[in-house]
Amino acid sequence: VSSIVGCAFCEAEGGRVVFRHAKFRVVHASEPNFPGFYRLIWANHLAEFSDLSATDQLLCMQAVTAVEQALRQVCQPSKINLASFGNVVPHLHWHIIARFVWDTHFPQPFWGEAQRAVDATRLHQLQNQLPVLEKVIVEKLTQLNT
Amino acid sequence: VSSIVGCAFCEAEGGRVVFRHAKFRVVHASEPNFPGFYRLIWANHLAEFSDLSATDQLLCMQAVTAVEQALRQVCQPSKINLASFGNVVPHLHWHIIARFVWDTHFPQPFWGEAQRAVDATRLHQLQNQLPVLEKVIVEKLTQLNT
Repeated sequence: VSSIVGCAFCEAEGGRVVFRHAKFRVVHASEPNFPGFYRLIWANHLAEFSDLSATDQLLCMQAVTAVEQALRQVCQPSKINLASFGNVVPHLHWHIIARFVWDTHFPQPFWGEAQRAVDATRLHQLQNQLPVLEKVIVEKLTQLNT
Repeated sequence: VSSIVGCAFCEAEGGRVVFRHAKFRVVHASEPNFPGFYRLIWANHLAEFSDLSATDQLLCMQAVTAVEQALRQVCQPSKINLASFGNVVPHLHWHIIARFVWDTHFPQPFWGEAQRAVDATRLHQLQNQLPVLEKVIVEKLTQLNT
């Protein structure tokens, strides 16, 4: 694995690790108002999706899709949001976010302006789903390996 | 092609069409301060990336990657930003954006807060690259068909 001194995703996990593959890890982003926010972080320090080989591009998106499918199956979000920016940390990572019409920012992106106050009851219900959700995430990602 | 009444991307192109494939189109987003902003819009009305078949997921990301590679080759951006949200228009589309350290929002996403004023000179230089860029986009996407 190539590693760069000073890179936040080379030097730290970037969240609570849920699954580790030789080529990537999936972490819970631990954003307080967005419990259904995970990140897939590529192991090697590459900046852009197109820096991956065609084989690794396929693996990467199969893994992103597996997380998306687990979120849809367990949490039934209003929408899934996917994004790969890396303007601040230019180390390839995908944001995979379950969005709900009641969340603080909907329909704005996570990076946009808040639209309403926190719905503590629904947030708590969603947080309670995480153990089941993460079991399904691990199952789906484990199947990718075989 | 499945179509939904009232869907902005079923009823209109969503930008200036640069390339049309049977299963998707690529449009120039025509965002004034972001000339290097394209969208890949799936032809069928589907909400989520994981609603695509595995074959279409691969085709979709190969096309996104082709646009990304053309942007990198011609415009040499500081970073590429990719995103699929659809909170406002739940019809599968990918934002593919060439970002520059001098653009109004860097390192914030396009959807975040502006960081500085427009650099009219550099913006004009980038706009001047679009004809060459779009020739390369079309070449790369045409190769996907064969």
